[in-house]
Amino acid sequence: MTNIFDLPSSLPNKELFESLISADHISIERIISNGQVTPPGEWYDQDKDEWVILLQGEATLAYADGSEIKLAPGDYLFIPAHQKHRVEYTSSEPPCIWLAVHGSMGKI
Amino acid sequence: MTNIFDLPSSLPNKELFESLISADHISIERIISNGQVTPPGEWYDQDKDEWVILLQGEATLAYADGSEIKLAPGDYLFIPAHQKHRVEYTSSEPPCIWLAVHGSMGKI
Repeated sequence: MTNIFDLPSSLPNKELFESLISADHISIERIISNGQVTPPGEWYDQDKDEWVILLQGEATLAYADGSEIKLAPGDYLFIPAHQKHRVEYTSSEPPCIWLAVHGSMGKI
Repeated sequence: MTNIFDLPSSLPNKELFESLISADHISIERIISNGQVTPPGEWYDQDKDEWVILLQGEATLAYADGSEIKLAPGDYLFIPAHQKHRVEYTSSEPPCIWLAVHGSMGKI
């Protein structure tokens, strides 16, 4: 049995992306952040829709319109393809554990 | 912000299925169980692959070969299409919160 909360004994000084499912229309990944943020001036601008949930830690996302979203464990959101966003803050104690699903999700 | 751990103030006496994403190739749902199990003699036999994680509670799944899998919070597994399975046990205190992704996931 694999547990999403099991972390490596030591975390690298960068975000850790682990593919859990990789298929034509769906990918699922675990992301572990411990303090990393999107570099200044950079944005995620993704070709696919993303559904993402924060399972551990605290984080802040920002959109290009200047709005910010603070996330606590269990908070989830849908990020349409090409909705520019960046990560402004991630906690390191505890590290952030994200579960992200990528694919074409149409309208919801 | 929507939180996966927010439960209705009272739970029905049956499993609660809530669609979070419903698209051509991907569906994501939250399932809340509080003691329900698959009826005796019945099996889930799904046309699509499923990736499922238990986020709260304790549960036991069983496969047609007689094997059982006990799940704790954070445990996740991949159930290929048409792999018959049933839910043998779900806790009610606390209720089980499942997050399930359905679609065609190919080999992993």
